[in-house]
Amino acid sequence: MQRNGTRIGAVMDEVRARIASRSYGPGTRLPSVRAQAQAMRFSVSTVLEAYERLAAEGVVTSRRGAGFYVAGPAAPLALAQIGPQLDRQVDPLWVSRQSLETDGSVLKPGCGWLPAQWLYEAGIRRALRTLARGDALELAEYATPLGHPALRRLLALRMRANGMAADPEQLMLTESGTQAVDLVCRFLLEPGDTVLVDDPCYFNFHALLKAHRVRVVGVPYTPSGPDVELFRAALQQHSPRVYITNSGIHNPTGAVLSATTAHRLLKLAEGSGLVIVEDDIFADFEHSPAPRLAALDGLSRVIHVGSFSKTVSASLRCGYIAARADWIESLVDLKIATAFGGGRLAAEMARMVLTESGYRKHMETVRLRLADAMAATVARLEAMGIQPWIVPQAGMFLWCRLPQGMKAEAVAQLCLKDGVVLAPGNVFSQSQSAGDFLRFNVAQCADGRVFDALARALAALAAGRSG
Amino acid sequence: MQRNGTRIGAVMDEVRARIASRSYGPGTRLPSVRAQAQAMRFSVSTVLEAYERLAAEGVVTSRRGAGFYVAGPAAPLALAQIGPQLDRQVDPLWVSRQSLETDGSVLKPGCGWLPAQWLYEAGIRRALRTLARGDALELAEYATPLGHPALRRLLALRMRANGMAADPEQLMLTESGTQAVDLVCRFLLEPGDTVLVDDPCYFNFHALLKAHRVRVVGVPYTPSGPDVELFRAALQQHSPRVYITNSGIHNPTGAVLSATTAHRLLKLAEGSGLVIVEDDIFADFEHSPAPRLAALDGLSRVIHVGSFSKTVSASLRCGYIAARADWIESLVDLKIATAFGGGRLAAEMARMVLTESGYRKHMETVRLRLADAMAATVARLEAMGIQPWIVPQAGMFLWCRLPQGMKAEAVAQLCLKDGVVLAPGNVFSQSQSAGDFLRFNVAQCADGRVFDALARALAALAAGRSG
Repeated sequence: MQRNGTRIGAVMDEVRARIASRSYGPGTRLPSVRAQAQAMRFSVSTVLEAYERLAAEGVVTSRRGAGFYVAGPAAPLALAQIGPQLDRQVDPLWVSRQSLETDGSVLKPGCGWLPAQWLYEAGIRRALRTLARGDALELAEYATPLGHPALRRLLALRMRANGMAADPEQLMLTESGTQAVDLVCRFLLEPGDTVLVDDPCYFNFHALLKAHRVRVVGVPYTPSGPDVELFRAALQQHSPRVYITNSGIHNPTGAVLSATTAHRLLKLAEGSGLVIVEDDIFADFEHSPAPRLAALDGLSRVIHVGSFSKTVSASLRCGYIAARADWIESLVDLKIATAFGGGRLAAEMARMVLTESGYRKHMETVRLRLADAMAATVARLEAMGIQPWIVPQAGMFLWCRLPQGMKAEAVAQLCLKDGVVLAPGNVFSQSQSAGDFLRFNVAQCADGRVFDALARALAALAAGRSG
Repeated sequence: MQRNGTRIGAVMDEVRARIASRSYGPGTRLPSVRAQAQAMRFSVSTVLEAYERLAAEGVVTSRRGAGFYVAGPAAPLALAQIGPQLDRQVDPLWVSRQSLETDGSVLKPGCGWLPAQWLYEAGIRRALRTLARGDALELAEYATPLGHPALRRLLALRMRANGMAADPEQLMLTESGTQAVDLVCRFLLEPGDTVLVDDPCYFNFHALLKAHRVRVVGVPYTPSGPDVELFRAALQQHSPRVYITNSGIHNPTGAVLSATTAHRLLKLAEGSGLVIVEDDIFADFEHSPAPRLAALDGLSRVIHVGSFSKTVSASLRCGYIAARADWIESLVDLKIATAFGGGRLAAEMARMVLTESGYRKHMETVRLRLADAMAATVARLEAMGIQPWIVPQAGMFLWCRLPQGMKAEAVAQLCLKDGVVLAPGNVFSQSQSAGDFLRFNVAQCADGRVFDALARALAALAAGRSG
């Protein structure tokens, strides 16, 4: 940390970067101290000190009289190397890391979750108190391989209520919705396979798919779902194995899949052997349920994924996968191999909270608050010339176009300096065609400083352009 | 489920197996109903019914007049296909699944954890009550990318007490020790790389490494650690990228790495660019700490992993990775991409429990109970002619050889019918050379029915041999 900004640090970073990018492999001789000093316009002693610090760290080894060499191991596969190398300032992990990193003083209109005060704190406290008096097994034992039976039965009932016929044995609990999607990808994909995503889509799908070393093809998203003709063309051209999407409320646009589009997508999938992964984490925000691909399909080629992080608590890690029974059987093996047994505590807390009548009332309140926040945010943004792509029926997301010529990344970087984390459009876009979009989370826009920072950023950029 | 054991089910299973093994790819025409009926010696109507049920499930499609074809998608990559296909009865997931699946009536001397009543129930209850009154952020928010700062500070102190100098910034929390090892593998390994393990080693390392599609080479384990000469030979012959082992108390043998072996291993690793992953989940069972590779190495090429599942609670999911700061940086990206943010609840509970003086007293009691259980189990097994390989200084594991000519898998299968889950030796052995070994968990051997079932199984097998 303390070497940031120093010349020695700059030399060390340069060497590290070349090792990370594998341009210096294990055993590679570093440029001589003198050559490096000339190239970087630093003193010889600066470079020597940097090399020796790297040697002390084991990154390079010094051979007496023969210079410095890159030590094994070969540079570990950093995530950034797997896919196209984007500038870290705007890569798909930028928003996650900025949003998760921040302390309470930072405003996060770009994050994908509700403020802690909007979550179901009272229910969580009640569940903790009940657990403290509860069964010792819940407190101390691993869960069964599929996960907490009572929670799976409850989830199966909730799915049936939305037209999805799933047995509890077709449900496997996971530690999170993201882990659920990751396990499904491990199960279905091999490196080099092609995956379809919406363009734009949830940015962490990009990060996750990079980790799986697959090719990603984006299909433009319309206000009623993916563009069906372009979807058909992508199937023909790329023979993808999987399509990953949100059901219910689309992230980042807040749009909803129409029944017609759902039916047409599913027919296309059936004709081409495509598996669809439907991430349903926003279900409880809907005023009335949109069509689910898993309902039309009967969990034959659709895998349905969800969690409680967005509505109950992000601190309580619990997600689930609903799929064909034989796929679930293989997914259990993969879960045990890569995460061993699940716990019982989080699942039992989720079950307690979801069966409380208080939770339903809580979610009614949240939906009304979101509707108010949506209207207020739309009005404030429009007044600044920031235009919603659509005004969503439900949920927290508002996908907006900046005024002509404004770059979302530049706005986000300026706002970050003001303590406001935004979500610039291209982190959601495989084609990088959303450079003038931002995703707003209306639940995180109550503080006027969000709009003050935005206004300052827009003004600064406008002045820069005219200047 | 209901078709198990039927002829229709047998035909369906046959087709599924061929799809799973990819011998029938998507679009492959199934054998004609008549040919299949002849091949399997079933009636035509049986096969037709089976094909039609498969069609109803979407596994195959029927083309009028042209027969049945395998539907897309191509068979998902089941874990079992990735590595050598072992009989499910004895594969590395067998023990996990049998142990996790069972209800309270089944005895589990083969499992790798303490009975729930041995864990720190009182401390967990106290932590739950305190949390119920605690900060709303702990209850509802995601953790920061590295995870709960106070728990990381505490873990860094605990590591320093064992000679491992780690900053809190070199620690990343995970959902479990297994997820920690999995993330490290994702970071360091590419499909086709070679990994060294101990032979025998923790069986789930085999399952995990299969999921990573790497080549696994076993190095025979001695009572003082891996055989150093064979380790050196394996490095030269296979150029492995990673060596994964247990520190402290070795699973399954209960042996302990000697300081001499640790030093020699590390020198070999330094000379060959090997990264060592040291899984330290049994640390709190030690009476006096064994050498840690991470302490000798200073977290340069050793990655240290741990969790609280074995001592605090298996239900509370929380593990950690300690490694070089630049590696931790990349591991954070991978964690967010594949599991998103962690929770705060489990980490805060772990922190509360670990800082209680009650926890230290609890672990003292557990260590004494384990020593008693170890002595008692050794005596009962020796009386049956089952011989410990060594009598471990600490921990729950006892690695034992069966009487001459007895096969552990056969014993395990007979005992399972008696409601006793054993851990047969070959699930731990890459070379499959531990067919006459069993791993016992002495904490799970208090019930005399364990030894009754063992005695019956041994007698039945002896009778079968002489008959």
